[in-house]
Amino acid sequence: MAELVKGALLYTGKAKEMYATNDPEILWVEYLDQATALNGKRKVAVTEKGLLNNRIASLIFTDLKQHGIENHFIEQLSDRVQLVRRVQMIPLETVVRNAASGSFERKFAVPHLTKFATPVLEFFYKSDQLDDPFINESQVAALDVASAAVVAEMKRQALLVNTRLQAIFKAMGIQLVDFKLEFGLTDQGKVLLADEISPDSCRLVDQQTQASLDKDVFRKNTGDLTTVYQEVLQRLTAVEGSQA
Amino acid sequence: MAELVKGALLYTGKAKEMYATNDPEILWVEYLDQATALNGKRKVAVTEKGLLNNRIASLIFTDLKQHGIENHFIEQLSDRVQLVRRVQMIPLETVVRNAASGSFERKFAVPHLTKFATPVLEFFYKSDQLDDPFINESQVAALDVASAAVVAEMKRQALLVNTRLQAIFKAMGIQLVDFKLEFGLTDQGKVLLADEISPDSCRLVDQQTQASLDKDVFRKNTGDLTTVYQEVLQRLTAVEGSQA
Repeated sequence: MAELVKGALLYTGKAKEMYATNDPEILWVEYLDQATALNGKRKVAVTEKGLLNNRIASLIFTDLKQHGIENHFIEQLSDRVQLVRRVQMIPLETVVRNAASGSFERKFAVPHLTKFATPVLEFFYKSDQLDDPFINESQVAALDVASAAVVAEMKRQALLVNTRLQAIFKAMGIQLVDFKLEFGLTDQGKVLLADEISPDSCRLVDQQTQASLDKDVFRKNTGDLTTVYQEVLQRLTAVEGSQA
Repeated sequence: MAELVKGALLYTGKAKEMYATNDPEILWVEYLDQATALNGKRKVAVTEKGLLNNRIASLIFTDLKQHGIENHFIEQLSDRVQLVRRVQMIPLETVVRNAASGSFERKFAVPHLTKFATPVLEFFYKSDQLDDPFINESQVAALDVASAAVVAEMKRQALLVNTRLQAIFKAMGIQLVDFKLEFGLTDQGKVLLADEISPDSCRLVDQQTQASLDKDVFRKNTGDLTTVYQEVLQRLTAVEGSQA
């Protein structure tokens, strides 16, 4: 392609900035050295976090593609930049849970890390005004957030992603407890996996020690985020490195 | 059958008491002159409420049966007593919404009484300890609350009930905004509509005046509950009376 030029800032997320480029199909994503909690109310700088998450997400998106799960990732451009395909984001967070933790554990008073016979799938309606409420499929239809066909496709892809991510993390000695995905629609109306997959969006537990290897370390102030994310990247590179 | 004798108190609800009888298949339900709000935290005596709700529920259950929707109702025995078939209650409240109100309106900031193109179906997990949380079908499966087949059958029956209730209330000049159902399992594993259907469990609005004709009058202190329930019974009797 012609030389790609970074354009205007389109959107600032909790730990990423999205920019336009001179190609209307391509977005420029900068991963920030920043962590937030409490829906953005708490925000601090974290050394190298942008670099680590960019590398982790790039490796995972590449692996998923190699295993037949299409997604918006195009390429990693530099330490903190990746290029992705522009899609129209669907305002739903898709959460997949393999074991009880976080809001599920609190809401249903289930023992921490109780394993589910089949994965739990949850949707949350992305709305700062409404504080991202938990939503079911019939409410999604009533509010015209997404069609039944789009929701079915999101569920199908989320379960495929879960199967592959479980395999990746298992090879790294890590239990994938739960994770959050976001999807977008291409101009052709195709549901495409987007956003990021990293220890910011996954709940990861060391299979041996049960130690948290994700953003819970920051949420709960139980350790140094950089050290933990470095550990995840190191194990991921050992598994995926030759393919990067 | 042999003469039925009232037995031990099995359960005290918000506005009903359930007793055993000498027939293990039959429960004795007493409708109380009592209303509660805020999950039982506010409780007051309401003249004739038990009599009115017992009559209303008896008429509605009878109508549903006549329209092919089986339910636990056997017969009305006296002003405040009805006999019902004993089932094992499924710990889910099934809510059907035809228009936005109550928790839906608040949660999604939708204008009051916005009509839905198709009914919204919600489940709430009945648990005083957990404060009856909103639950989706995948969580129902993970927590082993009910099988997928049972949930599908509850949904099917809830939509049938909705269609028939809408017709009944329309004939009474009333819009059925939303309602709550509870189901049980027979010894043969059949899903059977149970609990009650009354202005305690339905949100009803006069088609002309938009006035509330249900427990919202009590919840919001906007009128006299007895007068409103009498109005509902009077209109229902005009529609169903000849069949009672």
